[in-house]
Amino acid sequence: MFNINWDNIIEKDVNDKNKELAKKAIQGIKHKKETSEIGFMNVNEGIINTERLISTSKWIQDNADDFVVLGIGGSSLGGKTIVTALNNKFNKKGIRVHFIDNVDPDYFTDLLNSIDLKRTVFNVISKSGSTAETMAQFLVVYRLLFEKLGKKEAVSRIILTTDPKKGALRPLENSMGFKTLDVPQNIGGRFCALTDVGLLPAAVAGIDVKSLLKGAGEMANRSLTDDLVKNQMLEYSIVKYIHALKGYDISVLMPYSTKLFDFSLWYVQLWAESLGKQGKGQTPIPATGATDQHSQVQLFMEGPKDKLITFIGIKEHSNVVNIPDFETPIEAFSYLSGHTMKELLDAEMNSTQKALYENKVPSVKIELPKLDAYNLGALMMFFELATATTGEFMGINAFDQPGVELGKKYTYQMMGRKGY
Amino acid sequence: MFNINWDNIIEKDVNDKNKELAKKAIQGIKHKKETSEIGFMNVNEGIINTERLISTSKWIQDNADDFVVLGIGGSSLGGKTIVTALNNKFNKKGIRVHFIDNVDPDYFTDLLNSIDLKRTVFNVISKSGSTAETMAQFLVVYRLLFEKLGKKEAVSRIILTTDPKKGALRPLENSMGFKTLDVPQNIGGRFCALTDVGLLPAAVAGIDVKSLLKGAGEMANRSLTDDLVKNQMLEYSIVKYIHALKGYDISVLMPYSTKLFDFSLWYVQLWAESLGKQGKGQTPIPATGATDQHSQVQLFMEGPKDKLITFIGIKEHSNVVNIPDFETPIEAFSYLSGHTMKELLDAEMNSTQKALYENKVPSVKIELPKLDAYNLGALMMFFELATATTGEFMGINAFDQPGVELGKKYTYQMMGRKGY
Repeated sequence: MFNINWDNIIEKDVNDKNKELAKKAIQGIKHKKETSEIGFMNVNEGIINTERLISTSKWIQDNADDFVVLGIGGSSLGGKTIVTALNNKFNKKGIRVHFIDNVDPDYFTDLLNSIDLKRTVFNVISKSGSTAETMAQFLVVYRLLFEKLGKKEAVSRIILTTDPKKGALRPLENSMGFKTLDVPQNIGGRFCALTDVGLLPAAVAGIDVKSLLKGAGEMANRSLTDDLVKNQMLEYSIVKYIHALKGYDISVLMPYSTKLFDFSLWYVQLWAESLGKQGKGQTPIPATGATDQHSQVQLFMEGPKDKLITFIGIKEHSNVVNIPDFETPIEAFSYLSGHTMKELLDAEMNSTQKALYENKVPSVKIELPKLDAYNLGALMMFFELATATTGEFMGINAFDQPGVELGKKYTYQMMGRKGY
Repeated sequence: MFNINWDNIIEKDVNDKNKELAKKAIQGIKHKKETSEIGFMNVNEGIINTERLISTSKWIQDNADDFVVLGIGGSSLGGKTIVTALNNKFNKKGIRVHFIDNVDPDYFTDLLNSIDLKRTVFNVISKSGSTAETMAQFLVVYRLLFEKLGKKEAVSRIILTTDPKKGALRPLENSMGFKTLDVPQNIGGRFCALTDVGLLPAAVAGIDVKSLLKGAGEMANRSLTDDLVKNQMLEYSIVKYIHALKGYDISVLMPYSTKLFDFSLWYVQLWAESLGKQGKGQTPIPATGATDQHSQVQLFMEGPKDKLITFIGIKEHSNVVNIPDFETPIEAFSYLSGHTMKELLDAEMNSTQKALYENKVPSVKIELPKLDAYNLGALMMFFELATATTGEFMGINAFDQPGVELGKKYTYQMMGRKGY
């Protein structure tokens, strides 16, 4: 499990009032767990049918060269995050896993033109079965498969991941024979990465889903104590909260890992949609180190002092890349020779953090032992829990999204849905 | 060329003082153009050797299955933006173009493990020839090619794009025989998308670079008048400026196009690194419609009232995707049938903009006629110019990046560079 380095935060003192708040926050989310109001903390407690997931993924691997997830928001970001983090995106062998999270007609057509329908399996993911973008994709793909391969093949090549009981998709299991998987009733879109939603794409990509769940479960267990000293998740949450109160209300996530870029986007959804309410919210910003040192760091350094940055460093990489000498020594870069890429990456991270702190920009650093399924599961659970406790601090319900309803209503009107 | 819809902004009145500021801003950037202090406005005026670019790209297409850009920040984002916007990323035929913009040892190894060095060409892009990350990549790749294919092949398979006269890479053209391309002396990293830096990857990917330049050139021409009524770029810049003064100082870019996601990241660099100085800066945020309606829109709608959103809509797509009926009508989504995906996408955009405005969140909408090379060139020039004029409004030099020097110094120290 990982350590957090607090050396570079600005507001170091958690006062008694906030300690009391922290205790209440933990009590709040524990209560939600115990009453089964909220289920994401329980993903390693037998609620996920991993055997079914694994056998489904084996069938897909045997029957497809392309696996296409049709879903948007929480139905896409979690799986995408896991697959990007743990897979080799350049690999030309093995099954290709795609996430089509929009209704961009050109992007969608590009995909359809590139796949062999006879060797493709689609996974339609929508808890309610009424997500407009996903349902539009479903209608197009079903018709296409139907016309090219017939009804039986069309039904067999689409897996529906949806609410176990409710919603518009669930009845199609019995009426038409679609294979189905579950979005647990008490786990909402942005918290369902570690359910069938994100775990099926992960399993199809060959990732160890049991280790993902194990890491998540251990993080959940160790994070439900109200002892601030032992609970890094709670400390992280309260540090962000007290910085936000002092005006550092933009919350940057900057992993030093290209493979964690989608993780940043997943975090953005989690933080923005859970906590952006009642005129409040810490605006999240995705970044990647070292890349963004050449993009956003100028602003972080010299722009408004409204940002708290969370770095994520990886202690041990899977590969060592040695930087060799050049033919003739060239002053501008020969100092790099003899080092490894990782040493350079770490030096960049530590330098940036140090320079920011000297410029009064606070940051926190999470030190991940390794980027593997176990630690990624733990990291995802860490941020899900931190979102929930931060909601408690702010007096906000982290589990709804009332602000998107008006836009949906107008969309239904414009598209001619009855009753709108 | 495109239209801008201003119906949903909040601050509608540009006062005389700001009109005067706008005039001065245009005079300022025209002066920089006329004195050749800044060159990005001139890319369509014969300064780019397009014949050399095209012949180089043909040689690459004939001699490679993979083309790998080694560069970071402005040396990567521009080319990546163009290729993502105009190419089919799912296409399995033709040359693959990769942008390796980091020193993540695992990501880098993933790439190296997937390519055939005998059928790969690398493009090392660094104006100064001293960018640590890029030089580390260069050293690794040169040694690898040298060991596998010998010196002659190693030299022939690496193209250096760098300053025409200065820097650490330029001398290698004569001393070792590397092919070289130019980053014009008066065009800095984040403004060089439409030079050899971004145009070579574009040409390799089969994109019409002359149309990119033509669109950019026409946008530059029409944007250098100080008549606010005729100059949409200037109006856009001043609208953002006066909103920022009123507290809307987070600047979201939200194209309704998956293919423009990298464009959002390119914009983030441009805006953040150019304008984040002296304690000022409009913090840029990347978003994608409709996808981010299921992620960030909740925050935009109900979070702090500090955001101005720029939508980009595409009027005409290359593909029409009809949404068909399902077997049996299902109330939750049968209203979609008979529409096209584009109608849904447009309805989502218009609904979101309307709902935001009713909630007092201002937005601007850019209506792009088509996502093609000509219009993308125009769009990129539009944002480059708007960055420059906004710098003038704010009294900030948009063309330097002093805030990243301290971090660089610490990195050199940690890596043992002499003199640091």
